[in-house]
Amino acid sequence: MSENLSPAQNGNAVNNTGFSPNSSAEGGRLANKDGRINLRKTGVPLYERISLYHALLHMGHLTFTLTVFAIYTCLNLSFAMLYYFIGIENLRGTSLTGSFLDDFLQAFFFSSQTLTTVGYGHISPVGFVTNVIASLESFIGIMSFALVTGMFYARFSRPSAYIRFSPNFLVAPFKGGKALMFRLATYKNNHLTDADAQVTMAVHVQENGKTVTKFYPLTLEISHINSLALSWTIVHPLDEKSPLADYTKQDFIDCKIEMLITIKAFDDHFSNTVQQRTSYTQDEMVYGARFLPMYARSEDGNYTNLMLEKINHYEKVDLGEH
Amino acid sequence: MSENLSPAQNGNAVNNTGFSPNSSAEGGRLANKDGRINLRKTGVPLYERISLYHALLHMGHLTFTLTVFAIYTCLNLSFAMLYYFIGIENLRGTSLTGSFLDDFLQAFFFSSQTLTTVGYGHISPVGFVTNVIASLESFIGIMSFALVTGMFYARFSRPSAYIRFSPNFLVAPFKGGKALMFRLATYKNNHLTDADAQVTMAVHVQENGKTVTKFYPLTLEISHINSLALSWTIVHPLDEKSPLADYTKQDFIDCKIEMLITIKAFDDHFSNTVQQRTSYTQDEMVYGARFLPMYARSEDGNYTNLMLEKINHYEKVDLGEH
Amino acid sequence: MSENLSPAQNGNAVNNTGFSPNSSAEGGRLANKDGRINLRKTGVPLYERISLYHALLHMGHLTFTLTVFAIYTCLNLSFAMLYYFIGIENLRGTSLTGSFLDDFLQAFFFSSQTLTTVGYGHISPVGFVTNVIASLESFIGIMSFALVTGMFYARFSRPSAYIRFSPNFLVAPFKGGKALMFRLATYKNNHLTDADAQVTMAVHVQENGKTVTKFYPLTLEISHINSLALSWTIVHPLDEKSPLADYTKQDFIDCKIEMLITIKAFDDHFSNTVQQRTSYTQDEMVYGARFLPMYARSEDGNYTNLMLEKINHYEKVDLGEH
Amino acid sequence: MSENLSPAQNGNAVNNTGFSPNSSAEGGRLANKDGRINLRKTGVPLYERISLYHALLHMGHLTFTLTVFAIYTCLNLSFAMLYYFIGIENLRGTSLTGSFLDDFLQAFFFSSQTLTTVGYGHISPVGFVTNVIASLESFIGIMSFALVTGMFYARFSRPSAYIRFSPNFLVAPFKGGKALMFRLATYKNNHLTDADAQVTMAVHVQENGKTVTKFYPLTLEISHINSLALSWTIVHPLDEKSPLADYTKQDFIDCKIEMLITIKAFDDHFSNTVQQRTSYTQDEMVYGARFLPMYARSEDGNYTNLMLEKINHYEKVDLGEH
Repeated sequence: MSENLSPAQNGNAVNNTGFSPNSSAEGGRLANKDGRINLRKTGVPLYERISLYHALLHMGHLTFTLTVFAIYTCLNLSFAMLYYFIGIENLRGTSLTGSFLDDFLQAFFFSSQTLTTVGYGHISPVGFVTNVIASLESFIGIMSFALVTGMFYARFSRPSAYIRFSPNFLVAPFKGGKALMFRLATYKNNHLTDADAQVTMAVHVQENGKTVTKFYPLTLEISHINSLALSWTIVHPLDEKSPLADYTKQDFIDCKIEMLITIKAFDDHFSNTVQQRTSYTQDEMVYGARFLPMYARSEDGNYTNLMLEKINHYEKVDLGEH
Repeated sequence: MSENLSPAQNGNAVNNTGFSPNSSAEGGRLANKDGRINLRKTGVPLYERISLYHALLHMGHLTFTLTVFAIYTCLNLSFAMLYYFIGIENLRGTSLTGSFLDDFLQAFFFSSQTLTTVGYGHISPVGFVTNVIASLESFIGIMSFALVTGMFYARFSRPSAYIRFSPNFLVAPFKGGKALMFRLATYKNNHLTDADAQVTMAVHVQENGKTVTKFYPLTLEISHINSLALSWTIVHPLDEKSPLADYTKQDFIDCKIEMLITIKAFDDHFSNTVQQRTSYTQDEMVYGARFLPMYARSEDGNYTNLMLEKINHYEKVDLGEH
Repeated sequence: MSENLSPAQNGNAVNNTGFSPNSSAEGGRLANKDGRINLRKTGVPLYERISLYHALLHMGHLTFTLTVFAIYTCLNLSFAMLYYFIGIENLRGTSLTGSFLDDFLQAFFFSSQTLTTVGYGHISPVGFVTNVIASLESFIGIMSFALVTGMFYARFSRPSAYIRFSPNFLVAPFKGGKALMFRLATYKNNHLTDADAQVTMAVHVQENGKTVTKFYPLTLEISHINSLALSWTIVHPLDEKSPLADYTKQDFIDCKIEMLITIKAFDDHFSNTVQQRTSYTQDEMVYGARFLPMYARSEDGNYTNLMLEKINHYEKVDLGEH
Repeated sequence: MSENLSPAQNGNAVNNTGFSPNSSAEGGRLANKDGRINLRKTGVPLYERISLYHALLHMGHLTFTLTVFAIYTCLNLSFAMLYYFIGIENLRGTSLTGSFLDDFLQAFFFSSQTLTTVGYGHISPVGFVTNVIASLESFIGIMSFALVTGMFYARFSRPSAYIRFSPNFLVAPFKGGKALMFRLATYKNNHLTDADAQVTMAVHVQENGKTVTKFYPLTLEISHINSLALSWTIVHPLDEKSPLADYTKQDFIDCKIEMLITIKAFDDHFSNTVQQRTSYTQDEMVYGARFLPMYARSEDGNYTNLMLEKINHYEKVDLGEH
């Protein structure tokens, strides 16, 4: 089937998606569900390839906390080692026990009191070398905590759209025909305005005996809304203007379609444009279904209630095909 | 009346406001006076539904300070408890009194000296467990204050438009006809440039026996100004091009109109676009009135004086209706 | 003269500058040289009218440092007072001297050691009340320094255009006629791209016996440049399309012209749009002059040299008028 | 040759690049490889000419760390000097040794313990002057670290595009003719969307016996891509619409061409527009070559592999010229 579809689609295929039309160079889906490109970069050393900033913003909270704690502990251990080898007799207030562990622990506790600048003073440095190292350690302590303060803030203030997408996209009845539909809503106490949606469809078709990837921007019924107040059902009508007009359920599967979605909006708390991307493949298609409402007037009638657990609520419908 | 108005208005009603046309799903007003959508979200756990960032930026200064202080006190109490149960004989410099309160207080004061890293040292930790906990506490102290530093900055630097709107909107005489008018001004030492106003009117009308909400973008006499130097009176002429052209005072009330307003501008201190939203309902309408000036040359003639207390100063006028 | 000029100009006067056409409500120049509107706001309490953020960003470095130091000293004095009145016998390590000053100083130094969390410990708190206050003071200390950290960063990272304008604007010969010209350049190690200039002329003319202010956007020969690499001479040709076409030197003075200028550009270090505004009045006009070059090839021929001290270098020329 | 080329090109030369058409005022290349303008500014004092913010963001990590450390050490030394001259008998816990070095070191270590607020307390200030200085030093310590925290964050969070350009640009076969091509890719774990490329060509031609610099915006085959997912080869076809249509290899060299490139894109981690600039001169031209692919399906077929070390991989081809 792909062969006779191809010509009709060539008309409005675009080549400025940033993805390659060469299907044989492409591994797996183009983009992951979280919108990240399914790609790895090689050929430059790791330290050049990693933006600490991007990496730290991607980490989960637990991973981040543990990483910071691990670095704190390593710094502590290293300095403790130094104090131990210089000799803990240079730490006034400690007593040489002869046991490695006990002596090392005293050095370790002094180190941690210096690194955090708590400096109780019941242990204090004596002699030139120990004093210099203690001075350096407290400097490093303050610098590290300055860095961590910045990281905390960067993670904390990172503009994010907080959009939840319906796990499935539907082929639903629409104005006497069919349409592709998926639904989204913000799930936090944030409010987006001036939201724009952009949907690009990738289809894999045969051309001159080779599989090529073609990209079509999909026309949306509504591609801009003033306020993402409630949920937003994004609709691409499968009418005569659609490059997918004649696709059957099997065609969607055979062409291994992938829908690439970008939502951009303005968040007035971040006072910034926020963006979220996702992708749907044919595996996530429900052919013949319609979304059910996900909001209603509250019981007391004073506000509207948006039920986020219903974002994927749909009912199966017969599209009148066979 | 609504029935015969409906057809005339259908022409330019829009469906991309993000609000639902289904009046029966809508509870109360659409947006609150502070521009927040009158909506609650359910169906996801609280911790997923709350953006700490948005929540902290919404808090009043007092609430924020008290929250931080409460957390500080709780942390203090928890660690004090730990030191107490390990035994305050491991805190050198304290004396076992036998009284729970006195002993606990000594542990509490040591804890607070550790958490803030003040560490006087007249009380100091002895033994492995106490030392480890003290080391951990000072680490947690520094981390917490790093977090709080970030939060302070986020609250402090949050771009805000600082716009005050007149509490009422007027139906005022305008060029031989009538116009909807409201007034706004910045009330702080901020200066906005390239200000844009967008006004959408929601009216509730009968259609096929059901109440539906229709949305009309309102044409403004001036919708962009270069500099929000003085006050700005926003004017929607109720002329033949207006969807509300034939509305009487009673029609405004019957249709439960709601005007949704968004002001966007550039603040060159934040070097950012700032946005403020508000909404007016029919309750806030003054039918037949005109705004009085709110600025004048200063007494010494060297500057212009903007009198913010006059933002809602108007005088009643007869619109020549009956 | 103004009367016969007025009609010709009415054609393209604009009313969306945000300034009032009512000259009698206007005091002094519209905008100051630094671009701030020449305006004061009254009618709201000071604490509501001041945005701490805007105020702190406006302060000079010295004022800011002194303000912070003054607050630090006041906090210190207040807590010292508290410790003194509770009794410095509750500060172990101090000795009651009987002299108010000596006793107070001991309390003051303890207070400062607590507020900065340096906590040497040679003075330490004894008893419930003193301990609670010390605990509170170290908490306030850390909170204050968290705040100050944020303020430092806000001041430090505030996007700024760093543009220097020529102190004078010229009426210069241009393509056989005349043109208004002024010159600007960035004076720091910053680089602006995609720079846009917007110039609005305010003239005071007689209309129906009253002085009114009219505003004309001025057409510029080049209003956008890709890169603010060298200096930029902004040129408004006084040709037949200009609202000021027929103005003589005296007309400029009689109409008390004021040119309002906004430059917007992108700074890729701030990764942000930066904006700078200024204004010229007739007092800053040099009638009949031409700017001299302010850049040249360096002596070694390897780079271009931009001589900022020459930003206002011009030579007088005869415009052929009499 | 330049003479007969000049007329043809005059048609679409532009004068809003911000660079001067006067070749004799221009020293060396216009922009450096890192996109900075090849320009020095003089005529204002250094402290006015330097934006600390811009300077700190330009520094390498090592330079920055060493600078901070140097300042820390200088502060330490200055305060140590003060304590020494006041007399270290005012530092309780030290012992007057009579040796300058030993006494000074004790003062130095006390100073560093105060500056970092570690304050062990085995050395503590005695007397009014020493106490006041110590109080000041701990205040300065905290202020400095507040500043450094801000600087760390500014460096850390500076939006950057992380784009790598091919070191060479090619004149490659393209659709039966020729085209200028260069290639770029992001080399970190960042993802850019909505990328725009802008290319301006500077050529030096003879006009009326003088060398003038002319600037031509170059039309690109694709100047906008939705997602900078893989590499992006930027193509300017040397067809009849190109101002460089008839250029031979020698012409490119004789005209000392310089291509100025700006890439703008949106990074959703910074939630900001990022920009990177570069420039190519005739020395970086490879005449007659074609880029080889730099990405391929991974071995396990699950993702695409972008090989950054191949960004400049090309093969020589014959352009059929002689």
